[in-house]
Amino acid sequence: MTDVNRQWIMTSRPKDMVSRENFSWQESPIPEPGEGEFLVRNLYLSFDPTMRVWMNAQDSYLPAIQIGEVMRCFSVAQVVKSNHPDFAVGELVNGGFGWQDYAISNGGGPIPPSKLHPGIDPQLTMSVLGMTGLTGYFGMLDVGEVKSGDAVLVSGAAGATGSVAAQIARIKGARVVGITGGEEKCRWLTEVAGLDGVIDYKSEKLSKALRQHFPKGIDLYFDNVGGPTLDAALAGLALGGRVVLCGAISGYNSATGADGLKNYANLIVQRGRMQGFIILDYAKRYGEALRELAGWVQSGDLKYQIDLQEGLENAPETFQRIFTGANQGKQLLKVGDVS
Amino acid sequence: MTDVNRQWIMTSRPKDMVSRENFSWQESPIPEPGEGEFLVRNLYLSFDPTMRVWMNAQDSYLPAIQIGEVMRCFSVAQVVKSNHPDFAVGELVNGGFGWQDYAISNGGGPIPPSKLHPGIDPQLTMSVLGMTGLTGYFGMLDVGEVKSGDAVLVSGAAGATGSVAAQIARIKGARVVGITGGEEKCRWLTEVAGLDGVIDYKSEKLSKALRQHFPKGIDLYFDNVGGPTLDAALAGLALGGRVVLCGAISGYNSATGADGLKNYANLIVQRGRMQGFIILDYAKRYGEALRELAGWVQSGDLKYQIDLQEGLENAPETFQRIFTGANQGKQLLKVGDVS
Repeated sequence: MTDVNRQWIMTSRPKDMVSRENFSWQESPIPEPGEGEFLVRNLYLSFDPTMRVWMNAQDSYLPAIQIGEVMRCFSVAQVVKSNHPDFAVGELVNGGFGWQDYAISNGGGPIPPSKLHPGIDPQLTMSVLGMTGLTGYFGMLDVGEVKSGDAVLVSGAAGATGSVAAQIARIKGARVVGITGGEEKCRWLTEVAGLDGVIDYKSEKLSKALRQHFPKGIDLYFDNVGGPTLDAALAGLALGGRVVLCGAISGYNSATGADGLKNYANLIVQRGRMQGFIILDYAKRYGEALRELAGWVQSGDLKYQIDLQEGLENAPETFQRIFTGANQGKQLLKVGDVS
Repeated sequence: MTDVNRQWIMTSRPKDMVSRENFSWQESPIPEPGEGEFLVRNLYLSFDPTMRVWMNAQDSYLPAIQIGEVMRCFSVAQVVKSNHPDFAVGELVNGGFGWQDYAISNGGGPIPPSKLHPGIDPQLTMSVLGMTGLTGYFGMLDVGEVKSGDAVLVSGAAGATGSVAAQIARIKGARVVGITGGEEKCRWLTEVAGLDGVIDYKSEKLSKALRQHFPKGIDLYFDNVGGPTLDAALAGLALGGRVVLCGAISGYNSATGADGLKNYANLIVQRGRMQGFIILDYAKRYGEALRELAGWVQSGDLKYQIDLQEGLENAPETFQRIFTGANQGKQLLKVGDVS
């Protein structure tokens, strides 16, 4: 525990790859909660590609982070002082408390806090039973409408969202091929997560690998990366193929934005559909999804990996890990202990 | 009438803009129908952007036209000899009889022939009550799911398909803005077709015009052109916006294919959907659609234009008109008279 509030302030917007230069370290007094507010101590910070979008000047599905504000992120925190009737001291909460030790909440904001179910590991609520797990769940089932027998391709397949999406497709009876980078991730996907095939984008030529794995075309592509990978998948779509646009990480750190798609006209020839979604729209259905996800985790059908780093001072470098692919599973940063 | 069968043979595949160089003129004997076949005399040839796709080496939703084959097109023809129980001499038929005076059919093929309803002008069955009208109908209603109050954008709005799509949106209570080129087409869209607004791509800057016409974003974009126009529309999508991919004419005559889309990630932020379709999939529902389209034509709610050229010898240049935008309405070529 510290007696000051250590904070990372966003001081500039990245032009391409995000770096420590975009933030400054600041120490300020621990704030006091006012009437109807509560104070939390952050325990785990979550690192998600979408945070890079929040750093751009233009508002997205959430307001842009303003220069001079604490860097926004999902996190799990513990209530340490409370003047709020619904949040008691000692309780654990999910929220968007940012890159800092302490935060004040009134229970609202762009990412409203919610209490953790007692007895569930906080790290699980930030991964397979959290936003990334939910994103894989609704993206694969609601947007992708996966069905038994589908030939499914998932990019970022060893990542927090992709691994859930891919395994749900497998559970539903689809044949699933994942794209990832590096031998260790490839091995995890086939040997632990039980995928039918894997493509290592670092050592294989994607278009050739797609033709080999999908001789009859891709029925469903769950896209976490955008750019040339999405373009190659579009070229390989089967009749009536669907593309779920979950993220376009390949373009997030590019000054000119995402790479241009050349093969979109194949959506006409194949009567295909490409659809984007934002997990926050499914908030009312999180409960049903979490029950089903938790069941699969308990039965061993749904595997997950967590990459846990430590220390608030390492937040910028931890953030970079998800863009370089250094992370092995869901990227978290431990910044405090449960008291 | 001629006593030979004059034909345009496809002798090479165009690298970019299609031209007379890709065809050769040939005169051969009029063929005799065998058992179960019939002979037709072409009356009107239809010119459609999709024909350019058929000329490429790669099969699309129809097999590629082979070098040495008669150029494929939709047409209306009259049966002049018949050994087929369903097609009698004198009857008018829609089919894919190609750039030639005479053709043999067994009732099947990639574009199966169908008899015209007696009393309907053959030119209408090739435009507003034909493939292009049906394409506008199913694209706007089934794929686009247009509804009252939608802010709708249609490109190629003065064209055979776009004009039907745009007017159906207007009939259904949407606010409709069309994109076209040139004063005459603009005037037709607002003064005759009753659109709420028009953008002249030849004299206006598209992105600025879109912001003016769609301050709250585009709910539905019916795309006939692809490329930079599609990209600009993607950037201007409203929440939950839909894109109907009908054609990508801007890329059809390009050696490198369609221009790359930069703004597809806006489908994520706006929870948007982009979907392609092929009219041939709706064959079982043509009847209901044609009845509704015919009703709107009769009531004056649905206007159309036909650009009628004459003479089989002019087929290549007539085809070029639809890519240069020289055509004013549905492009047809009269090649024979009803006997």
